[in-house]
Amino acid sequence: MNEIKIFAPATVANISCGFDVLGCCLDSIGDEMIVRKSADKGVKITKIVGEILPFETEKNVAGVAATALLEKLKTKLDFGFEIEIYKNIKPGSGIGSSAASAAGVVFAMNKLLGEPFSKLELVEFSREGERLACGSPIADNVAPALFGGFTLVKSTNPLKVIELPTLPDLYAIIIHPQIEIKTSDSRAVLPNTVSLEDATKQWANLGSLVHALHMKNYELFSESLVDFIVEPHRSKLIPDFDKVKQKSIQAGALGCGISGSGPSIFTFCKGMQIADNVTNVISEVYNKTQIPYHMYSSKINTQGVKILVI
Amino acid sequence: MNEIKIFAPATVANISCGFDVLGCCLDSIGDEMIVRKSADKGVKITKIVGEILPFETEKNVAGVAATALLEKLKTKLDFGFEIEIYKNIKPGSGIGSSAASAAGVVFAMNKLLGEPFSKLELVEFSREGERLACGSPIADNVAPALFGGFTLVKSTNPLKVIELPTLPDLYAIIIHPQIEIKTSDSRAVLPNTVSLEDATKQWANLGSLVHALHMKNYELFSESLVDFIVEPHRSKLIPDFDKVKQKSIQAGALGCGISGSGPSIFTFCKGMQIADNVTNVISEVYNKTQIPYHMYSSKINTQGVKILVI
Repeated sequence: MNEIKIFAPATVANISCGFDVLGCCLDSIGDEMIVRKSADKGVKITKIVGEILPFETEKNVAGVAATALLEKLKTKLDFGFEIEIYKNIKPGSGIGSSAASAAGVVFAMNKLLGEPFSKLELVEFSREGERLACGSPIADNVAPALFGGFTLVKSTNPLKVIELPTLPDLYAIIIHPQIEIKTSDSRAVLPNTVSLEDATKQWANLGSLVHALHMKNYELFSESLVDFIVEPHRSKLIPDFDKVKQKSIQAGALGCGISGSGPSIFTFCKGMQIADNVTNVISEVYNKTQIPYHMYSSKINTQGVKILVI
Repeated sequence: MNEIKIFAPATVANISCGFDVLGCCLDSIGDEMIVRKSADKGVKITKIVGEILPFETEKNVAGVAATALLEKLKTKLDFGFEIEIYKNIKPGSGIGSSAASAAGVVFAMNKLLGEPFSKLELVEFSREGERLACGSPIADNVAPALFGGFTLVKSTNPLKVIELPTLPDLYAIIIHPQIEIKTSDSRAVLPNTVSLEDATKQWANLGSLVHALHMKNYELFSESLVDFIVEPHRSKLIPDFDKVKQKSIQAGALGCGISGSGPSIFTFCKGMQIADNVTNVISEVYNKTQIPYHMYSSKINTQGVKILVI
């Protein structure tokens, strides 16, 4: 096997009560990547389509993740890798654009190498891409991108990822308003400290949400999708967030929150009919704002990165 | 049916990462109560054995919980209830002494009345007893006392209790040092605010612990029994807490923490052999302190309050 084409999925992190730990993997939004063995050693990015991103390996998240993998290989390779990136996920959208690139490339290389690494090790390599993209080796997007479904990052040092069950009839609707929120702004609004009372409510809800996933209990899942800590602050940076939330829940959504650090907003819905209704009401809200936007509707991807052509 | 004798179990609340929300029910520690219909209307406490506690209905947690139940009855009764309390759980021990009295009496009355109320409603009545005992209608002891097993109090207003699965081979070892920690002191050491970083670790662990219970994963259960928020403060009030924790974990315990607001310390162990070893090492630590103590070893009670004689 000398070449592989893969689908690198978008992901939703910071899911309501699961700030910094809970994410899920999407099915119909993602990048494509071709990775092939090359005579030249090392990693070379040969093509980037869809976005203007650096070709220099050390400045590109895929390049950095790929290099992290190569450095951990015990045997010295007499070949290298070429990477083509077909970008569909907009950088800065809040649905794991950098995570997709990082997770996708290490998944592909691992396949071409005969799978010497576990998924958890691939998460470790991908985190190095995240470190480049956002200054910190966060794992809550790369974990669901690689494992699929819902994942809980129990700890980052040592890295421990828990694969949670998913709800079979769950759809995620994402609206990505075409605005830029500076990382510095989305961090600046985060409180350093939170009240013990709010923190307690938050962990009660996260515990409850994990239980709901195990029990396939949509109602409890819905009741648990509450964020007392981060959303009240960050939602102010997203135009009409409150209206999107209110209208989508009126239209039957199970919950609504900020995807990653925004500006994308996610909602979860049970079944395609409600998902369609929610898509419509969110569009109506945003059509009035004059802000351009993209919308996506996706089932939960329980597989993570997928092989397209091998 | 005119009379019932029940077992009202002790409980462990504030289980490590589940401060204020996660509790579990014990099997071999608890009070006994006899409740019988009487010609006189209302509630009368006729006997208290084992502890000196008030007989006045409105000053006794069982009396207050019983009254709360009576007030919610739709039909007017032409009889009342007599309550005998055989107290084994020491008040102020941190293993749900007041919760046992409150939960026990409403469970018994509900049986004598033909079960007009759900378990959740019984938790509501019992909380009134807790309000008398500790100034706040906490639910994290009365919930496991009534539902059994592990419970998560998702919210208190409205009250929502989640019954979690348990681990089949789990033992709880409790040491109750015979010291008094004033409620005011155990509250005063609690921080009003916590860092977002610590709060995030805490909810990652609670999510992980709920997952571990569902998966019957003892190792993950053990890894999740961590408290970044409360234990570092409250453990200072309990002599040799750190030593008990260290020795019990060395002896194979899955985890160790403060039961309720102390002074009791709980450990969880897999299997009776390890439970016995852990009991021994904890005894060794406390024998050196000259502080008198009680120790209990119990399986998890998955049933809650039990009928002894009907």
